[in-house]
Amino acid sequence: MEYDVLIEHGLLVTMAEGLPVVEDGAVLVENGGIAAYGKTNEFSGHKVKTRINAHKKIIMPGLINCHTHLPMSMFRGLADDLPLDVWLNDHVFPAEAKHVNPESVEKWSLHSIKEMLLSGTTTCCDGYFHEDRVAAAVLSSGIRAVAGQGVIDFPAPGVPDPKMNIKAAVDFVTEFKNRSSLLYPSIFCHSPYTCSRETLTSAKKAANDLGVLFQIHVAETKNEVHLIQGLGGMTIVEYLESLGILDSNTLMVHSVWIDDNDMGIIRKNHARVAHCPESNMKLASGIAPVPGLIKMGVPVGLGTDGCASNNDHDLFSEMDMAAKLHKVALLDPCVMDARTTLKMATIEGAKAIGLDKITGSIEKGKRADIILVDLDKPHAIPMYDPYSSIVYSAKSSDVTLVMVDGRILVRDGKPV
Amino acid sequence: MEYDVLIEHGLLVTMAEGLPVVEDGAVLVENGGIAAYGKTNEFSGHKVKTRINAHKKIIMPGLINCHTHLPMSMFRGLADDLPLDVWLNDHVFPAEAKHVNPESVEKWSLHSIKEMLLSGTTTCCDGYFHEDRVAAAVLSSGIRAVAGQGVIDFPAPGVPDPKMNIKAAVDFVTEFKNRSSLLYPSIFCHSPYTCSRETLTSAKKAANDLGVLFQIHVAETKNEVHLIQGLGGMTIVEYLESLGILDSNTLMVHSVWIDDNDMGIIRKNHARVAHCPESNMKLASGIAPVPGLIKMGVPVGLGTDGCASNNDHDLFSEMDMAAKLHKVALLDPCVMDARTTLKMATIEGAKAIGLDKITGSIEKGKRADIILVDLDKPHAIPMYDPYSSIVYSAKSSDVTLVMVDGRILVRDGKPV
Repeated sequence: MEYDVLIEHGLLVTMAEGLPVVEDGAVLVENGGIAAYGKTNEFSGHKVKTRINAHKKIIMPGLINCHTHLPMSMFRGLADDLPLDVWLNDHVFPAEAKHVNPESVEKWSLHSIKEMLLSGTTTCCDGYFHEDRVAAAVLSSGIRAVAGQGVIDFPAPGVPDPKMNIKAAVDFVTEFKNRSSLLYPSIFCHSPYTCSRETLTSAKKAANDLGVLFQIHVAETKNEVHLIQGLGGMTIVEYLESLGILDSNTLMVHSVWIDDNDMGIIRKNHARVAHCPESNMKLASGIAPVPGLIKMGVPVGLGTDGCASNNDHDLFSEMDMAAKLHKVALLDPCVMDARTTLKMATIEGAKAIGLDKITGSIEKGKRADIILVDLDKPHAIPMYDPYSSIVYSAKSSDVTLVMVDGRILVRDGKPV
Repeated sequence: MEYDVLIEHGLLVTMAEGLPVVEDGAVLVENGGIAAYGKTNEFSGHKVKTRINAHKKIIMPGLINCHTHLPMSMFRGLADDLPLDVWLNDHVFPAEAKHVNPESVEKWSLHSIKEMLLSGTTTCCDGYFHEDRVAAAVLSSGIRAVAGQGVIDFPAPGVPDPKMNIKAAVDFVTEFKNRSSLLYPSIFCHSPYTCSRETLTSAKKAANDLGVLFQIHVAETKNEVHLIQGLGGMTIVEYLESLGILDSNTLMVHSVWIDDNDMGIIRKNHARVAHCPESNMKLASGIAPVPGLIKMGVPVGLGTDGCASNNDHDLFSEMDMAAKLHKVALLDPCVMDARTTLKMATIEGAKAIGLDKITGSIEKGKRADIILVDLDKPHAIPMYDPYSSIVYSAKSSDVTLVMVDGRILVRDGKPV
């Protein structure tokens, strides 16, 4: 038998259970999946069509970006350093009204995907409007993505009548459900302050009926609790629980302003969290209690958020910032160590969006979502510990090769 | 007359007073200095030996790293995510005792300088031991640097007898004082908790007598105040003021645990501050009240600190992190806006280390410390505002050309 690809002679950081690392490691790829991994010399007798030499490079799973609004790269740097309401009402919303259309959504989604692939991201979890055009960009690019059609109780791009918002989402999911093994349609309810309880419950029911991920922004800002009608003294998390929104199929994005009791509710209901530290920092939203959630066993993934509030899709800088932010916030240098942080950007991210059987680590039977990182550079020499090097020293520009589902999409740091 | 170099057709971000920006801008370089800047077409009649096309690139002053321990790149990633005392006593100090010698200091200083130049830093302000070897690396590399010989009341590398610590520093300054216009020797007192009041006052007097910068770590950690003998109820800043340490020739590194009264003392005495957000975050030291200091008019520069606590010399990521950290810490998205942050890494950094007549902005008469940044990349497109793009989107890997004192040290992103 002749295999498709052998990536060999690299430092293999698998991110599989127990975090095995293999020096002079290799990964055997067949039919887009991982057939085996181990020491390079274990594969010396194997016939392969293509050998990729990873000498002096790290072989690791592709990174997973758990929260994006891909088309918003069109607004990268449009309006920074402003109060949240001015930023949203005077800049982002008017710009969206003027510039968001099916063509711009597809164009800038492709742009964002290119940026993500070049920086080592092989899977993203997106939510926006005209999501069919985001899906089209995903399909033509070769990236793996969850794509969530937005639901909001206001007129939105492509959904001028809010009464049709859930139907539009259901139609989107139905249209794209079995289109490609790389595309996972989803429903993205904007937030509990922009969706009524009826919208929230109907959208959640539709997501569960369709068997797709339900995404929602939760407790991003301190003021959000005051924007929600009918909380009746409940916290936002208690409110969502009371509506039956929280289960293992729900991705709670941000989750900044939650207390210990809320965290217990999230764990009890097996809900998942997407942590977006750079966005939360830049918009001055607050610091999510992520080390606590992780300690409780809640799957927490890492997200960049949209480019209007970050302003990039770089998960290497996001990891570095996440690790450092929580250390200083808790005045504890031991929290968010490099292993925990890299897990958040790989296997825990995969869990958060329900794709951990498919991606997020290098293991036999998973799909071949693999990147090579060249750390033979002044900024990453010497290397005492690969996890420290990846989180604290590596840069997105060190990514040389990106493979999604066995297909090489970036080679020598350039799009194929 | 024939000029040396014309850098032309770039977006010129000068960082001069009033922050003039010139589209299709150009900088004329002669004898290592800036002869003029303006629109490219203003120079169409000039004869020049070398024309550098900066089309689609930003032309800006080289970045200034106000706090480094260059040789410590040898310990990059050696021991991360540990409590401060374990990190220092069980890892950094033993590693220093074992590995720090004149040869390793020079070797890893050269390594760090290479990393800095590649990432757009043209000036650094260093402090360590065997600083003569750091100085040798500076001289052979072509970078501009303040180099401070360490003073500490313990046996130190190259200074086994602490009684000789000030003499060693004075000898160092004397030896290197007029060696090169790119090297500025300095005295670096480690801290008020590792130096007696006699050592502090003698070292400060020596620095002022010699007319060189006095550097000192101040109030880096919350516990530091308990480590200092004889404070008698004073804060650390009050103590330093009482010793006559604070003046416009003193660079206070870190300055994390200072209160409003301390900030008033710093301003009154015209002392300067080096802010090292990534180091303070990673070591969980705390968050320095930098927006307040800047508002008061204190010159604050940006520093990476040594590679054992960062783990790199990348001022682009340091800017991004500084801006975002203070926004979330103060829950105010307007503080540390992109202009303020870029000033900290350029002209304000130059002020902090006393070199603002020489570098830190592109102005006629200053030395030609200039970098080109290629933002025609997916992660930086579109560009609405160059300051936002530089601080929030640009990466160190976008630096294509680095000129120090008119000499090109990096071209096409590679060392010359």
